[in-house]
Amino acid sequence: MAEKESSQTETQTGNNTVLIGRKPVMNYVVACLTFFNAGEEEVVVKARGRAISRAVDTVELLRRAFAKDVIVKKIDIGTEEVIRPEGTKSNVSTIEITLSKQQ
Amino acid sequence: MAEKESSQTETQTGNNTVLIGRKPVMNYVVACLTFFNAGEEEVVVKARGRAISRAVDTVELLRRAFAKDVIVKKIDIGTEEVIRPEGTKSNVSTIEITLSKQQ
Repeated sequence: MAEKESSQTETQTGNNTVLIGRKPVMNYVVACLTFFNAGEEEVVVKARGRAISRAVDTVELLRRAFAKDVIVKKIDIGTEEVIRPEGTKSNVSTIEITLSKQQ
Repeated sequence: MAEKESSQTETQTGNNTVLIGRKPVMNYVVACLTFFNAGEEEVVVKARGRAISRAVDTVELLRRAFAKDVIVKKIDIGTEEVIRPEGTKSNVSTIEITLSKQQ
């Protein structure tokens, strides 16, 4: 069940959002391509914590190797408060990269 | 010698650039503050590979806790080709976050 849950939340949330988790970068590249091929004009790649570097890897691999007409439209960074199972709060950094097809 | 070199290259390159390496995030926050306090109007935080998430952590900690008047002016991502000691080439993702003091 945990596996199923993580597969839902890590790859796709919302209509055109790819949430980066711990899977290989290529999985997320394919998720982005799928959205674009389904007609989406924008795809948002989101990550937090250590997955942030994998989000950048995803976008760079996508643009370099698979979809050279995709451009980075916007990059936002931020902070989210996370409550750990023990009840302690901590802050985690987030990134949101908005991609779009070049006109 | 290696330690001295890494301390030079990891914390400061150029006039107003903080290059993120493997040190604690707080070290890089202090490096940014030092530049701003020395009168720099812009500070560029650069990182590559897995240090990218630490670059975002640095900027978020700086803005949240130490310098609320600092804004993110620009975020660029890219790819660099790295030649390993064995002679093989590989690509590494990069990030460049330009910070400036709010007017």
